[in-house]
Amino acid sequence: MYILIIYDIKSERINKVYKFLKTYLTWIQNSVFEGEITKTEYKLIKDKLTQLIDQNEDSIIIYNIPQKYLNKKIIGIEKNTIDFII
Amino acid sequence: MYILIIYDIKSERINKVYKFLKTYLTWIQNSVFEGEITKTEYKLIKDKLTQLIDQNEDSIIIYNIPQKYLNKKIIGIEKNTIDFII
Repeated sequence: MYILIIYDIKSERINKVYKFLKTYLTWIQNSVFEGEITKTEYKLIKDKLTQLIDQNEDSIIIYNIPQKYLNKKIIGIEKNTIDFII
Repeated sequence: MYILIIYDIKSERINKVYKFLKTYLTWIQNSVFEGEITKTEYKLIKDKLTQLIDQNEDSIIIYNIPQKYLNKKIIGIEKNTIDFII
């Protein structure tokens, strides 16, 4: 499964979330990660993120999109390339 | 067509981009907009964003995803509800 994670997190917690997500996904842009993961990893990521953030202050959106339907267009600089771009 | 726009833009240009995107899409989270648009609007949005930003400093990613394949999970607070959430 292919996921896209976007987060809006208080500064004191961003580093931990960033370091954790980097172990599974590709950093795309400020507060944005993408990548192909297994269902087991998906559960693990959701559980860990739930522990790392303050659910009353922080916001994380996980989009789960079949990769073949993910059409992507970049305007301006591309902060991090990811090879599947169509 | 359903699009998701994520941007990483220098502060001096963010307001203009935010005000422009709000006329077509729903603000979801910090630097994230979503919404259903027509192909004509899609072209107009791409052209206008290209004018509004500095392509050497700013980065915009537009994901074009068939809405029925857009599965979404929120962890923490939901900054802005959007009624189609599955």
